[in-house]
Amino acid sequence: MESDLFEADHEAYREVVREFVHRHVVPNMETWDRDRLIDRETWRAAGAQGLLGLAVPEEHGGSGETDYRYRTIVQLEIARAGASALQSGFSTNDDIVLNYLLRHASPEQAARWLPGFVTGETIGAIAMTEPGAGSDLRGITTTAVRTGGGWRLNGSKTFITSGILADLVIVFAKTDEGFGLFVVEEGAAGFGRGRKLDKVGLHAQDTAELFFDNVLVPDEDVLGEVGQGLAYLKQSLPLERLGIAIAGQASAEAVLQWTIDYVKDRNAFGKRVADFQVPAHRLAQARTAVEVSRSYIDRCVREWNAGTLTAIDAAKAKAWATQLQHDTIDLGVQLHGGYGYMMEYPVAKAFIDARVQRIYGGTNEIMMEIVQKDLMR
Amino acid sequence: MESDLFEADHEAYREVVREFVHRHVVPNMETWDRDRLIDRETWRAAGAQGLLGLAVPEEHGGSGETDYRYRTIVQLEIARAGASALQSGFSTNDDIVLNYLLRHASPEQAARWLPGFVTGETIGAIAMTEPGAGSDLRGITTTAVRTGGGWRLNGSKTFITSGILADLVIVFAKTDEGFGLFVVEEGAAGFGRGRKLDKVGLHAQDTAELFFDNVLVPDEDVLGEVGQGLAYLKQSLPLERLGIAIAGQASAEAVLQWTIDYVKDRNAFGKRVADFQVPAHRLAQARTAVEVSRSYIDRCVREWNAGTLTAIDAAKAKAWATQLQHDTIDLGVQLHGGYGYMMEYPVAKAFIDARVQRIYGGTNEIMMEIVQKDLMR
Amino acid sequence: MESDLFEADHEAYREVVREFVHRHVVPNMETWDRDRLIDRETWRAAGAQGLLGLAVPEEHGGSGETDYRYRTIVQLEIARAGASALQSGFSTNDDIVLNYLLRHASPEQAARWLPGFVTGETIGAIAMTEPGAGSDLRGITTTAVRTGGGWRLNGSKTFITSGILADLVIVFAKTDEGFGLFVVEEGAAGFGRGRKLDKVGLHAQDTAELFFDNVLVPDEDVLGEVGQGLAYLKQSLPLERLGIAIAGQASAEAVLQWTIDYVKDRNAFGKRVADFQVPAHRLAQARTAVEVSRSYIDRCVREWNAGTLTAIDAAKAKAWATQLQHDTIDLGVQLHGGYGYMMEYPVAKAFIDARVQRIYGGTNEIMMEIVQKDLMR
Amino acid sequence: MESDLFEADHEAYREVVREFVHRHVVPNMETWDRDRLIDRETWRAAGAQGLLGLAVPEEHGGSGETDYRYRTIVQLEIARAGASALQSGFSTNDDIVLNYLLRHASPEQAARWLPGFVTGETIGAIAMTEPGAGSDLRGITTTAVRTGGGWRLNGSKTFITSGILADLVIVFAKTDEGFGLFVVEEGAAGFGRGRKLDKVGLHAQDTAELFFDNVLVPDEDVLGEVGQGLAYLKQSLPLERLGIAIAGQASAEAVLQWTIDYVKDRNAFGKRVADFQVPAHRLAQARTAVEVSRSYIDRCVREWNAGTLTAIDAAKAKAWATQLQHDTIDLGVQLHGGYGYMMEYPVAKAFIDARVQRIYGGTNEIMMEIVQKDLMR
Repeated sequence: MESDLFEADHEAYREVVREFVHRHVVPNMETWDRDRLIDRETWRAAGAQGLLGLAVPEEHGGSGETDYRYRTIVQLEIARAGASALQSGFSTNDDIVLNYLLRHASPEQAARWLPGFVTGETIGAIAMTEPGAGSDLRGITTTAVRTGGGWRLNGSKTFITSGILADLVIVFAKTDEGFGLFVVEEGAAGFGRGRKLDKVGLHAQDTAELFFDNVLVPDEDVLGEVGQGLAYLKQSLPLERLGIAIAGQASAEAVLQWTIDYVKDRNAFGKRVADFQVPAHRLAQARTAVEVSRSYIDRCVREWNAGTLTAIDAAKAKAWATQLQHDTIDLGVQLHGGYGYMMEYPVAKAFIDARVQRIYGGTNEIMMEIVQKDLMR
Repeated sequence: MESDLFEADHEAYREVVREFVHRHVVPNMETWDRDRLIDRETWRAAGAQGLLGLAVPEEHGGSGETDYRYRTIVQLEIARAGASALQSGFSTNDDIVLNYLLRHASPEQAARWLPGFVTGETIGAIAMTEPGAGSDLRGITTTAVRTGGGWRLNGSKTFITSGILADLVIVFAKTDEGFGLFVVEEGAAGFGRGRKLDKVGLHAQDTAELFFDNVLVPDEDVLGEVGQGLAYLKQSLPLERLGIAIAGQASAEAVLQWTIDYVKDRNAFGKRVADFQVPAHRLAQARTAVEVSRSYIDRCVREWNAGTLTAIDAAKAKAWATQLQHDTIDLGVQLHGGYGYMMEYPVAKAFIDARVQRIYGGTNEIMMEIVQKDLMR
Repeated sequence: MESDLFEADHEAYREVVREFVHRHVVPNMETWDRDRLIDRETWRAAGAQGLLGLAVPEEHGGSGETDYRYRTIVQLEIARAGASALQSGFSTNDDIVLNYLLRHASPEQAARWLPGFVTGETIGAIAMTEPGAGSDLRGITTTAVRTGGGWRLNGSKTFITSGILADLVIVFAKTDEGFGLFVVEEGAAGFGRGRKLDKVGLHAQDTAELFFDNVLVPDEDVLGEVGQGLAYLKQSLPLERLGIAIAGQASAEAVLQWTIDYVKDRNAFGKRVADFQVPAHRLAQARTAVEVSRSYIDRCVREWNAGTLTAIDAAKAKAWATQLQHDTIDLGVQLHGGYGYMMEYPVAKAFIDARVQRIYGGTNEIMMEIVQKDLMR
Repeated sequence: MESDLFEADHEAYREVVREFVHRHVVPNMETWDRDRLIDRETWRAAGAQGLLGLAVPEEHGGSGETDYRYRTIVQLEIARAGASALQSGFSTNDDIVLNYLLRHASPEQAARWLPGFVTGETIGAIAMTEPGAGSDLRGITTTAVRTGGGWRLNGSKTFITSGILADLVIVFAKTDEGFGLFVVEEGAAGFGRGRKLDKVGLHAQDTAELFFDNVLVPDEDVLGEVGQGLAYLKQSLPLERLGIAIAGQASAEAVLQWTIDYVKDRNAFGKRVADFQVPAHRLAQARTAVEVSRSYIDRCVREWNAGTLTAIDAAKAKAWATQLQHDTIDLGVQLHGGYGYMMEYPVAKAFIDARVQRIYGGTNEIMMEIVQKDLMR
């Protein structure tokens, strides 16, 4: 059963996205992986093709498109090409950083910051996690202390997606008045970036540590109200989780298709691998699982559009779809035999890229903690 | 996330069904189990309340209601009461036997047979499976041989739901012209019923063997065209499978709720069982699984209403939802501790009733065989 | 790979046990299930054949055989016949009740109580679990209060194996001095038995509630030292758990063999079910799992013989082998198709009998709690 | 429960191996990964310490130690350091290549070839798999054609462990007389090596393609009798599979220990991660699984020593232990949170290294095919 989420306009937009993927993504993926970085050219090309900052209002250069199905198509098509690092970078920009700005930026800030999210000039990052505190945000130690005309920021953050390239970083910090969101831009004095982290996969993604050594954040760069940080975070969770869920779903769908194609093509013991009952049934089960999951993800997208997607339901989607992604890829690697272990096969890249999906954005165990709290009240 | 399948009219109908369950089902379940039979009174009461034969055209006494969401509500509410045997009996009547009649009965047959499916006077059965041929229908040995003005039926069938009570049995038999469907009514000479089979669960359901010893089926009791049996069967598969899937889904939802209630109520080691992380997370996972699955089942119901549900997608639903049912019940029993093994607890009854769901209507392995054939073409 | 646990003497003893099973068990199982009770004749026959009370010293009528491999053979052979209720009754007698007596009975008590455990005249029970406290023993409310020359026992117990027939019950009760073990014999004033509990399976086992209404336990019927109850309990845990583990392992091995035999015999779609790759691989995996598990169970038996089996390792064995039993039986039922749901097939009986194995003797979750505490110290 | 496989002499040898690991392995692993090659210095150091070619008879420089428990210790200790590539290279040399030579080399060949396997001068490879034929050996197309005084070898092989460094390659080829084993040494005309394959993990292992373009193999370099290739292969399977199984088991044990240490050390939400029930129980289950599996692997080692390990039982061990390895590592990564995705953590390296274990040496599906054939005869 195919998804019934999209209508004709979305399908037309899909063609645009596919053209971008074909011209800018597929030919460059190897380079990005080797460089451990996605070049800014790609971001600008995506901006030019209308793939970025869809939700930015027209007055700030965007299309003001709040139907998330368009963003979903961007997610799906990039993930289907196996370009997880780009997918993740775009998602951080659009589903997380921009989402904060759209909700909490003042008109002046909006005018200053939003246009770059449409053109691809601005790469954003969100600096939340700290070395000593993963999912436990209350345990963070980065502080902001009020000073004349602004705040002094001190501390360090880790596992920051787009940490090396980011032009604009939203930093989550503790203050006397509660948690606050402080925007630090490239070039701020005292703002340092650590080495690119050496990860299992997502090699093209510039994950890094960030350091804040007495960084001055002027009042006009504070996002929203200081003390409301946790409240703002909670509002951002549904879309952040949905973004990861969609990536997981898309990856599972792509890998399943590659694997089905492979077993139809590959012969062993005188017949197609597809004609052996064990691999065939496993793929049938995987196909069933993928379709079932898709119906839930589609429902979540509709709920988001309607403004009714809760952080709890998004947590379910995140945990479910990333587990599905893992299971599907694990099967895909296995059915590729030795080739599944060779990096030239997309399924191998999917394998190393996907492992972080069950961890970041809150581990799947944290997701279940959220769900159980709701259930056991 | 709750299902968004139903509208106000369906919810109103749900109240009617609940009233029936409250008055006629809950007080009688123990008796049915002890008698290993559901009394005809219950069927007539269900008919009187408008729970049976919804799809029967008005001219034959029904409401001609083809929106399957009403039938779904009947399924859900009865399954939620844990009355699996009744649920299964009604489903055999409405989703299988009646479905054949609605598709293939001549006007004369319709006038004769359909009204009883609305009033609850007629209990139907479908006689397909044979002792030596389970899912392998081509292997059956029951034959029908043309004779003057009709057919002579010989053979035996097993695992027949409602086998003891059935007034009208559709018998699947081999002829020289291919497979045919022959209707045998109670009282036909040569038509015998075996003993009630002693099953793991579903005790209230009168599953039995049926014997056909030179039974004469007059031409006017032949359903549709002889030789088209397999084609007719294929048309019946989506609804048969969907019916089982809905029962599985409903049962999983019910058992999950009972179990959540139980762990909130039960204390151990000085706190609620619900406050231990391991049971809480398992239930959170189960809840997630149930919601994800529900979105697929709901989608299938919509597809059925639209006339687009394929036998393949229904096979996925059947395999998925019955596995979900098993997993949820297994967890439910476990979290009830010793009480989960006591028949007075509904979860225990659910456990023994559910085991057949992954087997009948085609084993889940057969479902995956169907899915893989579609996938690997 | 076959077990290498046994030597020639054990194999000779196996023949004795098999003869008992052949003559006394197989012909009576249906009767026991119908009567919901195993007759005392069977116990006495087992005693006469040397199957009971092996560890009882020669002076009290036993053989003083402390090599647990002989007991293991009794376990295996009875479980292999699918006589779970008998297996469980014997295990309660020999692995639990007798084990307490052998450790803590005074010479006078030993002389009085032990002979009946050899002849089969005495059926023992252990009354630990209470309605409001399952695995949480510290939460029990049955009390013993010192009175002239003895103790007054008040409270109720549930899920008591052999609760209806038991001649001798060891009751675990709270006193001012800590927990104590009080022996209550049939006929004691104030000692009542509830109805036989209606269970999912193990129908032939007379599980029941027991009531103690001011029962006088004279000092000479107190087992060991009052206040040492928890310490005694801890000493009893390795063998209790090992007993359940062996039952699980034996059942898994038996059901696997029945299922392999079935799929070799059963035909579908023109060939043996055994010749389809999916069932064949599942059985290959099950066979692997059974052999792997067996090597651990055998190791545990050797450790027990050496006096080095810890309660923690026994907890691992209990959780592992009972899960294996479940998985193997679930597969076995499934591969029997519709027949797996019919009580006349041993696999169906195994299915309903086995479900309690993951629950009693401490749920498998409690087992993991024990293991994790050891691990995370 | 700890393994009871080893005796005092083995433990003494373990100290020797640990010293080697401490001095030569741990400090060099990063370099090997970066160079995508293990230097020959390491091999020679291992030879000097008595870690290689244990089974080589004394007359050829070895110790003639056929007690495989010594080899097992080498396996365990290197795998425990996380040096999978070295472990795999040594295993290929000792468990596969040397094993062929010990069985089939003529006295002259033995004198020529065996000493280098003791000193570490000779790195061996086995060239079996071909691009178009994975586990399906009968499908290979590399041929050897008799010529004056020897054979002409043509074809290509892939996924060859130690393919870049190998001094001595046993090539499996088709001849008119059946399959044969042909030894090709470095420098042979027409023998080419492809690029190092870019793998998911095992970066330090020089896996490569090999090409044979009319390579002349003189008669004195033919191993055993031409035409007996399949028979020889079958004899080699138990040890090859056991070697992989031991590596899997050792890796699982190591990763489990790292993870337990990590959760004891790491705090979240105000307490140790080890004090949350969900991670604690998962680790308890993993610990149970590891111990259960170990008892089977130990049994296999004993059977190998006794000369009774069958290829079928070794297939079970291979499939079981590598699945255990996967499951344990997957859990380990997850419980490390974000750090589990960082290559500086050994669990991350274990994750990428381990994925091939379920694939090479025959996929686990092939293992189950072997087991089912034995079972379903």
